[in-house]
Amino acid sequence: MKGRRARSLLGTDQLTLPEITAILRLARRMDPRRPPRLLRGKRVVLLFYEPSTRTRTSFEFAAKALGATTTLITATSSSIERGESLIDTAWTVTSLGADIIVVRHPSSGAPYLLSRFIPVPIVNAGDGLHQHPSQALLDALTIMNHKKHLKGLRVVIVGDVFHSRVARSNAHLLSKFGAEVVFCGPPDLVPEVSATLAPGVLVSHDLDAALPGTDVVMSLRIQMERLAGKQIGVEDYIARYQVTPQRMQLAKSDAIVMHPGPIVRGLELANEVADGPQSCVHEQVANGVKTRMAILATVLKAGQ
Amino acid sequence: MKGRRARSLLGTDQLTLPEITAILRLARRMDPRRPPRLLRGKRVVLLFYEPSTRTRTSFEFAAKALGATTTLITATSSSIERGESLIDTAWTVTSLGADIIVVRHPSSGAPYLLSRFIPVPIVNAGDGLHQHPSQALLDALTIMNHKKHLKGLRVVIVGDVFHSRVARSNAHLLSKFGAEVVFCGPPDLVPEVSATLAPGVLVSHDLDAALPGTDVVMSLRIQMERLAGKQIGVEDYIARYQVTPQRMQLAKSDAIVMHPGPIVRGLELANEVADGPQSCVHEQVANGVKTRMAILATVLKAGQ
Amino acid sequence: MKGRRARSLLGTDQLTLPEITAILRLARRMDPRRPPRLLRGKRVVLLFYEPSTRTRTSFEFAAKALGATTTLITATSSSIERGESLIDTAWTVTSLGADIIVVRHPSSGAPYLLSRFIPVPIVNAGDGLHQHPSQALLDALTIMNHKKHLKGLRVVIVGDVFHSRVARSNAHLLSKFGAEVVFCGPPDLVPEVSATLAPGVLVSHDLDAALPGTDVVMSLRIQMERLAGKQIGVEDYIARYQVTPQRMQLAKSDAIVMHPGPIVRGLELANEVADGPQSCVHEQVANGVKTRMAILATVLKAGQ
Repeated sequence: MKGRRARSLLGTDQLTLPEITAILRLARRMDPRRPPRLLRGKRVVLLFYEPSTRTRTSFEFAAKALGATTTLITATSSSIERGESLIDTAWTVTSLGADIIVVRHPSSGAPYLLSRFIPVPIVNAGDGLHQHPSQALLDALTIMNHKKHLKGLRVVIVGDVFHSRVARSNAHLLSKFGAEVVFCGPPDLVPEVSATLAPGVLVSHDLDAALPGTDVVMSLRIQMERLAGKQIGVEDYIARYQVTPQRMQLAKSDAIVMHPGPIVRGLELANEVADGPQSCVHEQVANGVKTRMAILATVLKAGQ
Repeated sequence: MKGRRARSLLGTDQLTLPEITAILRLARRMDPRRPPRLLRGKRVVLLFYEPSTRTRTSFEFAAKALGATTTLITATSSSIERGESLIDTAWTVTSLGADIIVVRHPSSGAPYLLSRFIPVPIVNAGDGLHQHPSQALLDALTIMNHKKHLKGLRVVIVGDVFHSRVARSNAHLLSKFGAEVVFCGPPDLVPEVSATLAPGVLVSHDLDAALPGTDVVMSLRIQMERLAGKQIGVEDYIARYQVTPQRMQLAKSDAIVMHPGPIVRGLELANEVADGPQSCVHEQVANGVKTRMAILATVLKAGQ
Repeated sequence: MKGRRARSLLGTDQLTLPEITAILRLARRMDPRRPPRLLRGKRVVLLFYEPSTRTRTSFEFAAKALGATTTLITATSSSIERGESLIDTAWTVTSLGADIIVVRHPSSGAPYLLSRFIPVPIVNAGDGLHQHPSQALLDALTIMNHKKHLKGLRVVIVGDVFHSRVARSNAHLLSKFGAEVVFCGPPDLVPEVSATLAPGVLVSHDLDAALPGTDVVMSLRIQMERLAGKQIGVEDYIARYQVTPQRMQLAKSDAIVMHPGPIVRGLELANEVADGPQSCVHEQVANGVKTRMAILATVLKAGQ
């Protein structure tokens, strides 16, 4: 995060270990009930070209807690104006006085493009199938609350890896810290080539075989319409890849269960797991606000 | 409002007389221009599964006046995520740090369900055909500004009672205080069974016969599409149930006219009545902000 | 802006020279980074019946910078309620406690109607094909940053003048200050009658002939669907009316280029012009926030 382009937060692949450690250390100290007013009088624009409740609200709460004002601009509900280029829209927002632009976009790479042309920090809140770095950072914070170190952990990421920016961002981050990442799911959703994403990434199509020795089970969202035309049907998916209490017996006894949300109960996770003692899904959401407070404070400070 | 579940505001049927009196006393003292900052640093989430301008804006103004930050989550414009359960959405909002959740939902009972599972106060901003307690409380405040006591008043509620949560919430509240409530309208919209809702509720299908001796005429919204297929047509409805200056002559000379809005002029109310000296419709809106300030302060205090 | 109706900002045709000068002088002193908290505790409602990103966000930033809270009510995304009249909606917003209503409406004259019935200041943020006074004021501020005086300047406004409230508001304002305004475009979009709008307004259908001696080239938005059925096609429009580097050679050497945005690159402006040293488009956006701060402060002060 040094120099002009490095002020932005674009992807976990571009972050160094010290940068990640610094954000997580700051996030851990953030208390949304007694927040430092590090962004007092600053303006954070949330430029969302895809609908989002949890990520948008999490950034909004984080920015407001730090004393910033927030403005939401969405492609659907209002008025990202027809015919205007993405860069021109971002320039307009910058000229209006934005201090940070948080952008979600269906096209992979959109925040990277903006960061090359726009002089204010860009925070990637999810771009296409590519990266969702704030999610990976909050996931790392959650894991470290339970496991102290990431190095040497075995993390099984199960579900639709192919379409998941959460999987990509987590794999890059965890790999940097020496964790073993296992992408698990049917071949249509977890192609063999996934293993080349980062060092220490493995591919498995057998969840029961992947779970022994596992410290963290991270379930991803399955969108039913994406199973259409695949070799695997919904019933089959549930039988083979749903995270159930029985399957959790195969993992380490102190393993934790994570999910980025929103959960489709009875598909990705059994209710007993989602609501059970190993589940960290609420903690992930709470850590999201703290992590995004740290991200906003970090990019703003680096830019000054 | 004591104990875990009672912190929420769900329906007027569940409120005791002292609880109602306390909210109204607090509301009367609230000055939106010099508000006490009772919610400073608190986060109020407006979770709206139905569109709303006046109720949403009223709660938003009330929360901001008390020093809270507000976040709007709507089912239509953004992104209450597909497949996620209502309880999981509310849990996410809670984990994000909401201190109060104000919910409007097309399903009767939705806020009650949430209040059983979610550890932050739930305020019902309208659920299906069931309850709209903040509206009934602001109506009571408005009546008491003109009539001192509710006991012994005759209140005629005219219009589409069958589909009206406003009518239900008002009838429960007014009945508790010993007012006489007359539901009035055509049989399709005011079935005989309505009289069993609460003690002291009567049913009439003849507005002219119901008005003598009346202190308060509360007109409800008529949605024209709901008259389709009914025995009564629009012209007929206007002829028999529109509140006109001539009809107001039948009520007490100091009777007031109320309407929860939005008004369809020329259908529910004649212009001369809507804009006349007996009309309290603007006062109702202003009292709404004060009442919602009192509600938010009350549920938050009870929860601490 | 004296008396009850004059508190509102409706159109540039109704503003006197001293009123315009006072707003521009105040705007020039406004610093969005160190704003005077002139609207602390005030409530600004943005009542938008048409989608808008830049104008809405600009007013929102301006209001928040001055310490006001803002509430957005849109016709599309939420819930301007069916059947309610515009005046009743504005009365509701007033009763809720709005101190200023900023209104955008597809019907020419809507803000004028409101200003006659509603006791809080109305700011016209664009009404139909009629007026967009805050845009003309920010344009005047931008021109005066470069040209010192408006008197005697030659301003060519090129594009779809017929459908442009920006053109109308600018022509009225510039004409008052003694500038020469040339409306330029194909006859379908710039009818001869346009010259009667204000003193000193000329009409031209030949951009190359209009540019010599020009100080300001203001390009307007072209909506492609409006060229359908016209005698002129898109290719022809570009050939004859696009503002290109070659054409800018015909104007004065220190001429500036303006555009209200959003720009459709390659249609209205060549990229080299939009991004070139004569372009003021980013400055216009930045001046928009300062100008709207001045407008809000002015109407509120006049109303007290």
